[in-house]
Amino acid sequence: MHTVFVYFIGSAGSGKTFLTKAMADWFDYKSIDNVIVNLDPGAENLPYNPEIDIREYFTLEDIMLNYGVGPNGAQIISADLIATKIDELKNEVEYYDVPFILVDTPGQMELFTLRESSNVVIDSLGKERSVMVYLFDPVVAKTPSGFLSLLFMSSSVIFRLNLPQILVLSKSDILSKEERERIIKWSEDPEEIYDSLHTFSIPGLQKNLGIELFYLLKDLGLFRPIMPVSAVENIGFEDIYEGIMELFYGGEDLEEILY
Amino acid sequence: MHTVFVYFIGSAGSGKTFLTKAMADWFDYKSIDNVIVNLDPGAENLPYNPEIDIREYFTLEDIMLNYGVGPNGAQIISADLIATKIDELKNEVEYYDVPFILVDTPGQMELFTLRESSNVVIDSLGKERSVMVYLFDPVVAKTPSGFLSLLFMSSSVIFRLNLPQILVLSKSDILSKEERERIIKWSEDPEEIYDSLHTFSIPGLQKNLGIELFYLLKDLGLFRPIMPVSAVENIGFEDIYEGIMELFYGGEDLEEILY
Repeated sequence: MHTVFVYFIGSAGSGKTFLTKAMADWFDYKSIDNVIVNLDPGAENLPYNPEIDIREYFTLEDIMLNYGVGPNGAQIISADLIATKIDELKNEVEYYDVPFILVDTPGQMELFTLRESSNVVIDSLGKERSVMVYLFDPVVAKTPSGFLSLLFMSSSVIFRLNLPQILVLSKSDILSKEERERIIKWSEDPEEIYDSLHTFSIPGLQKNLGIELFYLLKDLGLFRPIMPVSAVENIGFEDIYEGIMELFYGGEDLEEILY
Repeated sequence: MHTVFVYFIGSAGSGKTFLTKAMADWFDYKSIDNVIVNLDPGAENLPYNPEIDIREYFTLEDIMLNYGVGPNGAQIISADLIATKIDELKNEVEYYDVPFILVDTPGQMELFTLRESSNVVIDSLGKERSVMVYLFDPVVAKTPSGFLSLLFMSSSVIFRLNLPQILVLSKSDILSKEERERIIKWSEDPEEIYDSLHTFSIPGLQKNLGIELFYLLKDLGLFRPIMPVSAVENIGFEDIYEGIMELFYGGEDLEEILY
């Protein structure tokens, strides 16, 4: 069987690193082999021990010192440098014969989604066996306009990376039950999000948003039900797993494929 | 007359800082008073001397030292801290009686667009007199899927910040004449971008993109003609200026309003 690469992507502070760890723990608990790759050269105090770690090649500190730049400049340089280490990373990855490789991406989302080196990494490791788990930040997602903003941002990342996407509501434990349910409803039903938004008008736009937009995005597959996850409450991992299995194995359980 | 706040927003490396400087130079050349605000606590080697500077209150270095965190953590903390300095910033801003205040935002776009403090800043300084200039990174914009990705990302920022938006093709001097013209055509005509994309299919999406999407986004005002700008070739500033005047003064020239 071939390895599936799962990229965890979301804006800074959305909880990628903790979700990566919690997903690995869940796989361990289910006795499903997995490996973690850390692609963030600026990562500090990781809650997991990655089997593969970009920081073994360079760190943000190295770049700041070697190039004489501050954090802003170092982040851009290091994002671009990841591509130059792709042969080494690929060698390391090929050492592992596991069903799942979990890839934790740089803290600032745009360093991964908008720099060209991410496409080099995804292509080299195996694009056709890759999926992204996209994290909605719960604080942003709980207002209708914030939800809409994340919907467009997650779509933007689909167009950029050209990968299938599983949408998750990250750190859903920090939301009240009502907030969580409302966000899930918005993601399931164009009428629900439209009703919450229809008094909403934006300066510079020609008219208010129409419901057609949501139906169109739904038809395209850009507007999809979101899965609440929480590393604290230990929920959502089965859903992510099933989402991945559905994409790559038509929903068959891994045990049936492996044995 | 009231001051107009112009926020320069775009992903890391898209050229916000140089565009801010070049716009200020253009205003100076036209003898239009203007002030620059730097909101990036991690800015290094700015090409301009900002009249107002968040770094006078704190820098990314300060945060790293005081909180014992690395650059990733410091960026998030400092983005949130900007809101705590809003009274001081507002006092400074009110000292200037100028028609335009140009605001250079943090290097990593999501630190401004997705953290709550940006809404505090925009509201306090005066939301109804604010506009964003959104920069399309020319390297990303030159492929059809990259263009589409930026279109969704810029729309995402409209929903998040709820401000009118002027779209510019940043650093357009690094593109060939053909590339530049193609991008402008894509932004002007749904048929053009659709034709470039129609062989494009995305794993996990139900079907290929239809042209309806672009017509719908155009009707909404999310899909708009982009203005090429270049600080090197000194083009596009008149267009940005006219775009701002159109929004706030119905297109009247400032001289007619001032005198």
